[in-house]
Amino acid sequence: MVTSTTVQTRSLSNTPVNNEAAPAAALAHHEKRGGLKVIDDILARRAKAGKLVAGIAAASNSDMFKGSTDDMPSAKRWDDHLTRESRARGPCTLKQAAKHLKQPGIISLGGGLPSSQVFPFASLSMTVPTVPNFHEADTLTSGQTLSIGKYDVRDEVADYDLSIALNYGQSTGSAQMMRFLTEHTEIICQPPYKDWGVCQTVGSTGALEQALRMFCDKDRNDSVLTEDFSFSTALETIHPLGVHVFGAAIDDQGLLPEAMDEMLTKWDASARDGARKPHVLYTVPSGQNPTGATQSAERRRAVYAVAQKHDLFIIEDEPYYFLQMKTYPPEAQAAVAPSPPESVQDFVESLLPTLVSLDTDGRVLRMDSFSKVLVPGSRLGWIVASAQIVERFQRHAEVANQGPNGFSQVILHKLLDETWGHEGYLKWLMNLRLEYTAKRNTLLAACEEHLPRDLVRWTPPVAGMFHPDAGKRDLKAIEEEIFDSCIQNGVLIARGSWFQAEKEKPLSGLHFRATYASASAESMSEATSRFAAAVRKSFRKA
Amino acid sequence: MVTSTTVQTRSLSNTPVNNEAAPAAALAHHEKRGGLKVIDDILARRAKAGKLVAGIAAASNSDMFKGSTDDMPSAKRWDDHLTRESRARGPCTLKQAAKHLKQPGIISLGGGLPSSQVFPFASLSMTVPTVPNFHEADTLTSGQTLSIGKYDVRDEVADYDLSIALNYGQSTGSAQMMRFLTEHTEIICQPPYKDWGVCQTVGSTGALEQALRMFCDKDRNDSVLTEDFSFSTALETIHPLGVHVFGAAIDDQGLLPEAMDEMLTKWDASARDGARKPHVLYTVPSGQNPTGATQSAERRRAVYAVAQKHDLFIIEDEPYYFLQMKTYPPEAQAAVAPSPPESVQDFVESLLPTLVSLDTDGRVLRMDSFSKVLVPGSRLGWIVASAQIVERFQRHAEVANQGPNGFSQVILHKLLDETWGHEGYLKWLMNLRLEYTAKRNTLLAACEEHLPRDLVRWTPPVAGMFHPDAGKRDLKAIEEEIFDSCIQNGVLIARGSWFQAEKEKPLSGLHFRATYASASAESMSEATSRFAAAVRKSFRKA
Repeated sequence: MVTSTTVQTRSLSNTPVNNEAAPAAALAHHEKRGGLKVIDDILARRAKAGKLVAGIAAASNSDMFKGSTDDMPSAKRWDDHLTRESRARGPCTLKQAAKHLKQPGIISLGGGLPSSQVFPFASLSMTVPTVPNFHEADTLTSGQTLSIGKYDVRDEVADYDLSIALNYGQSTGSAQMMRFLTEHTEIICQPPYKDWGVCQTVGSTGALEQALRMFCDKDRNDSVLTEDFSFSTALETIHPLGVHVFGAAIDDQGLLPEAMDEMLTKWDASARDGARKPHVLYTVPSGQNPTGATQSAERRRAVYAVAQKHDLFIIEDEPYYFLQMKTYPPEAQAAVAPSPPESVQDFVESLLPTLVSLDTDGRVLRMDSFSKVLVPGSRLGWIVASAQIVERFQRHAEVANQGPNGFSQVILHKLLDETWGHEGYLKWLMNLRLEYTAKRNTLLAACEEHLPRDLVRWTPPVAGMFHPDAGKRDLKAIEEEIFDSCIQNGVLIARGSWFQAEKEKPLSGLHFRATYASASAESMSEATSRFAAAVRKSFRKA
Repeated sequence: MVTSTTVQTRSLSNTPVNNEAAPAAALAHHEKRGGLKVIDDILARRAKAGKLVAGIAAASNSDMFKGSTDDMPSAKRWDDHLTRESRARGPCTLKQAAKHLKQPGIISLGGGLPSSQVFPFASLSMTVPTVPNFHEADTLTSGQTLSIGKYDVRDEVADYDLSIALNYGQSTGSAQMMRFLTEHTEIICQPPYKDWGVCQTVGSTGALEQALRMFCDKDRNDSVLTEDFSFSTALETIHPLGVHVFGAAIDDQGLLPEAMDEMLTKWDASARDGARKPHVLYTVPSGQNPTGATQSAERRRAVYAVAQKHDLFIIEDEPYYFLQMKTYPPEAQAAVAPSPPESVQDFVESLLPTLVSLDTDGRVLRMDSFSKVLVPGSRLGWIVASAQIVERFQRHAEVANQGPNGFSQVILHKLLDETWGHEGYLKWLMNLRLEYTAKRNTLLAACEEHLPRDLVRWTPPVAGMFHPDAGKRDLKAIEEEIFDSCIQNGVLIARGSWFQAEKEKPLSGLHFRATYASASAESMSEATSRFAAAVRKSFRKA
């Protein structure tokens, strides 16, 4: 038995952003997206539309804010993919009644909306960075203080205020953030069909559970296809629903389309515990968790083609999309400092196409959130999908959570929409990518300094060594021994088995996932050396 | 066919708070709770415990913060009430790994927690009322500005800060708010068993769906018992799960225990579409939605006894608990101004016992939230239940939403825990009750002024009249006609049929729900007169 001990960095990819693979197609895509040009169009459109009027619990959708998509085809219908539960959902009666509030002069004795008068917050303010001085230390010297009043809309100083944000809202989130996120989706994704839309969420964790309940029905023996090693929380979300999970083989660019195709073509339910051939794919295309693999543009197209061939609906989970990095240079020590900033236009053009950008059928539900790029505590995310899918998602959100909270919406709207604007936010994302690139480089430099090269490899991610107990002891026991030894040595690292899609299969190798997201530069060297000691001990090379 | 046209005020009860019904028992209960005395105990306990140390994603539970319950019996086990889905849940691996972070000096390369360094919020501040000057206008003159820094914990100026609140957390919510809510539950509820606990939620809407998925399994033909007219959103949450709902008869104090008992004793699944005898009761004991009925202390005890007899697990939804009001005086016009303030001690003693306060078995899951008493946009609530139920709830929350957002938690903690304190918060609730009492009185005075007494009655809530089309047209059609006419006249009022528990049954009367929660005092008179015109028109008395 081959025992491969692999250290893989995560959160952000350490594999090349391989745009060269499909230059013509990628170029066409980027030309169409345009980045800054789209921002100009959006600003012109806003100026033409005039002031956004959207009061308490105002209904909204992306069609109110997006540019013309009249020349595009409509999404296909996905009714037969939906579960009985999802199809049974009706609209929330009390939220629907709110549509009458648009009638001028109407007085409501209908909905139980508390009076904003009794909210104990007269104003909220915050100190935030000024574009482009994003560093934490800069905020103390050059930062700005933004204020949100209770009645800024009435007082005509803003489009959104506390009296609206802190009251009940629609499960799609506020119209104000709907506008920002619809425009952001235009700048980044430009889905190639007519009736795409956005719905705000309580973060991608909740969005995934909602999506699974829309598409996966244990009474149909439904199953989900995902990467061989997949995000552990996603697996833990699927399992209690009584839905099957199957892992497709991966390489350093994630999902292998040929392996997916072969698996689905030869599907035999009787050999799979009765599981119906998967009709849903769950994938993390950028900085996959736990492997860190990023699908190239070409790979994404190939994965999408397999989904079309086998009628898979795709749940695209993209928390790390904006943290795509350039390849870690081999002359490591010299290159800990990341490359200098580029223009916003270069940044947008450098981004790989999302699956929803390739989605001519409307078969993708893309999940994004502010957790990895602003603050996880906002519990504010959004999906991009066809109007029919957004509508079913919204119906569930009305009873599952009522959409995201108002503090996050009004605070992020003040920061992103009113203050930084789309261009400023893209600059923030560019800067964040540089900060994480520096952290990644520091961790990889620490690996080069401390890890025993005869036992561990970390880039390229797949490499191997014989453990002295290989074949004698269960690999999970060895993995556990190394993990426990790490804890004793004072370093926490994630075990590969946590992420295995099919838990009943034997482990194929020893994997550990290290992240550079939270540790400081100084502590990464120490942590890596502690991990190295635990590995050496297990391999009896201490 | 008798067509009763009833206007019922909601959100807050307009039925008497009937403590006289069971004076000895209620007194014993209140003596035990003690209000201010419990606050003294809590303050002493905090002083003894010293500084609360709880960093990023720190695990917590109520046992860390509550007083001794050693002399009490443990909750019964409810395993056989749980669904297969709920029983299948394991802990979230990555959240569990956070327990190792308690080890001094440990460096994490494990969890994907972003570094708080890259959060763009250096500080947050807010203007709020100073106790007891809670009126909106007072905040502008005598309000105070509270500030929350990013590193207040490191800088030893507070127990909670942005670096913790805005990062990932546990699905139970932060330890800091867990402490406040556990103590608040001690002051108000004092559940009479040992192992009760609190878990924060994303609001009672989400908490209800989580609770239903824990207890109601369509594969078992499960069913839920509730009031004949029940909260429409709750019904809309239950229905798509394939779970049956049955309505028990109600009077002006809500659920009729005798009717519940008879219904359950004579249960015949074959006559009920195969539905298993209900093992779950969903009830809103205070200010029931839509009827406004409030169960007296005696009624609550009787409902609980029926639940014990028939082994019902109770989901207690109490958004309006603190808005219990005194009876509307018959000499209406003179009494629009509500009674003068009372002491905090009087206030706590005047509150009816919650079902969880009577819950010797641990069979109640109580849902509460800040939506009706602070701001709905916080999307922050909590449940009170036995440790075993909290644990299953928490397992689902880890994948359903990750618990409430950090902005709400840190903002409400600053206001409620660090600034107002428990006593100040109770004063806020006292004042809020007065404000809503004044609004209720205004609406009822408007009813007396404008509504045609020969067609409509509103207090007591059940009264009747023959509609000219009674027996000729479907009642829902007449209800719709009046509703549409109201909209035309410029008033939105909720239709009774929206709240009917068993939708397939014919309507037994014409009901409309009017709420005084959001309309201003001036507009209520106009709105009531518009409703009166719509009723007159339908009854051909215009």
